Amino acid sequence: MVKARRYVYKTAFDGEPKKTDLEIVEEELRPIKDGEFLCKAVYLSVDPYMRAYMSRYETGVTMIGGQVAEVIESKHKKYPVGRYVVGYFGWVDHVISDGKVQFSGAVTEVYLLPDFGKLPVSLGLGVLGMPGQTAYFGFLELCQPKENETVVVSGAAGAVGSLVGQIAKIKKCHVVGIAGSDEKCKWLIDEIGFDRAINYKTANFEKQLQNAAPKGVDCYFDNVGGEISSTIIKNMNYRGRISVCGSISSYNDTHNNLSKATVIQPFMIFKQLRMEGFIVHRWADRFGESTKEYLKWISEGKIKYRETVTNGFENMFEAFVGMLKGKNIGKAVVRAFPK
Amino acid sequence: MVKARRYVYKTAFDGEPKKTDLEIVEEELRPIKDGEFLCKAVYLSVDPYMRAYMSRYETGVTMIGGQVAEVIESKHKKYPVGRYVVGYFGWVDHVISDGKVQFSGAVTEVYLLPDFGKLPVSLGLGVLGMPGQTAYFGFLELCQPKENETVVVSGAAGAVGSLVGQIAKIKKCHVVGIAGSDEKCKWLIDEIGFDRAINYKTANFEKQLQNAAPKGVDCYFDNVGGEISSTIIKNMNYRGRISVCGSISSYNDTHNNLSKATVIQPFMIFKQLRMEGFIVHRWADRFGESTKEYLKWISEGKIKYRETVTNGFENMFEAFVGMLKGKNIGKAVVRAFPK
Repeated sequence: MVKARRYVYKTAFDGEPKKTDLEIVEEELRPIKDGEFLCKAVYLSVDPYMRAYMSRYETGVTMIGGQVAEVIESKHKKYPVGRYVVGYFGWVDHVISDGKVQFSGAVTEVYLLPDFGKLPVSLGLGVLGMPGQTAYFGFLELCQPKENETVVVSGAAGAVGSLVGQIAKIKKCHVVGIAGSDEKCKWLIDEIGFDRAINYKTANFEKQLQNAAPKGVDCYFDNVGGEISSTIIKNMNYRGRISVCGSISSYNDTHNNLSKATVIQPFMIFKQLRMEGFIVHRWADRFGESTKEYLKWISEGKIKYRETVTNGFENMFEAFVGMLKGKNIGKAVVRAFPK
Repeated sequence: MVKARRYVYKTAFDGEPKKTDLEIVEEELRPIKDGEFLCKAVYLSVDPYMRAYMSRYETGVTMIGGQVAEVIESKHKKYPVGRYVVGYFGWVDHVISDGKVQFSGAVTEVYLLPDFGKLPVSLGLGVLGMPGQTAYFGFLELCQPKENETVVVSGAAGAVGSLVGQIAKIKKCHVVGIAGSDEKCKWLIDEIGFDRAINYKTANFEKQLQNAAPKGVDCYFDNVGGEISSTIIKNMNYRGRISVCGSISSYNDTHNNLSKATVIQPFMIFKQLRMEGFIVHRWADRFGESTKEYLKWISEGKIKYRETVTNGFENMFEAFVGMLKGKNIGKAVVRAFPK
């Protein structure tokens, strides 16, 4: 018999998630049937969208999310023992699957991780998974960056933002990252090649932005929303493009009582800006394209990745809230069973 | 000798324009030279953009704006005596021109009004001029409305909004207008065929919007910005389109101290919305297309127009401030020399 632990969404989040909003329950799993397989979590993902999406769920459900898991028992040909998969099983450490799983109102397929060679399987939750696809398609398709343009990225030290900035450098843009600590800014410039980085928590953000982007902003990849975004949009150039990926500054607000920020419509008009929000599944039929590009870029040293790893399935809540507060650099993941 | 009056921008607008911010000066015009012609204003336009644009000008300049004028003296072959023209001469009642005029940082050509048949020449400032082009291209190009979709228009009883709603009806959409009085709402429904109209000054705007647009909002043509727009954007459907034409709710704010409104980024993301601001000159090479369409639609009774006319060049300030306060229905114009 296998014991499985899962996080139940016990009390609806109200503002910043509290530890008591979730409860770990332990259940014995039944034996698998034909056409099923048993997964054991290896790495679990914590992402900003989880905070935003849970407001659509009733309490009592399992916390949503994706993970890299190992198939440890199988009666399903496609998913043999020993293979690694990515599945949106939620916050569970063992699960029985038939290869399909409900995620955000749609049925998704459990994805067999291709051979990453020497690269760690955790990248299936990062640069070689959803954050990577989000950065690649959300930036290139909606911002349409051109050589020598100025690209600003907020949430720049996060899983998605750090990739967007590096892609923008590959596309020969002037890249400015916005992040929440001096340590993150240093990493952006010294390690992954951003041209400039601004700690938005220090004084006079707009002045710093104008210094870092003296020719104005052509493309803005937005992970945060709120006042920071209003200020960046105010400083955009004629026919600038904004890709709206996240709005983490308001994820702890309730749906009917969101925070306010400086209106952006006047800038949208007089600079004739275009702004588009997206969810990455729009490009699901092209996901292979980004993974192929990233593998090439990583092998050429053009894309670097970083992970902030929390050890232990029982520490997922801390990893989640830490990520929401911006404590991670690069992709935040949880190693389910540290050796 | 011809005496010309013009409005000088004497004190920079701060909040709502004050009468003392402008001064009427009277000057004697010199005789015209070869290649010049003398224009006498017939109708002058007052538009929301004037409030927004003046913040870019130094005091001492002439108030900006377009007019329909009659050529009353000419030494220029293209502009013979008796012809009507549209020129961005600013708030002047007589002016000497060589056919070119500076407007908003660009040189524009004085436009010879085509023969409108029995229609009044004032329409060159309305449906057959810039507001008409703004409605036609700004709505059709950026909202891309489809049959049976729900279209919401703010500033619906104004020069542009009233045309957008009628075009949306021609395109077989469900059309909801937002306006600032019951009289305007009645006009939208009873006279020009909107399906529903909401007076945003009455209680519970969001509830009224949800009643008027029970299937959600697919296209939003925005003339106002601010909180009204945040509420409409909150109620949009998956892959909705927003065309941002104006932001009149914040035109009396100063550039560095704009008002705040509920953030829109969360809705942009989760509904995957697209939003684009525009200035109509983007489509200048296609302006003939909209005039041709409007003339056909007017002759078929599919497009109706209305003007709010103020008499007397000396009353332009009152017409301007009244328009900013939403006192007009349809296009606000000033008849320079009432008979």
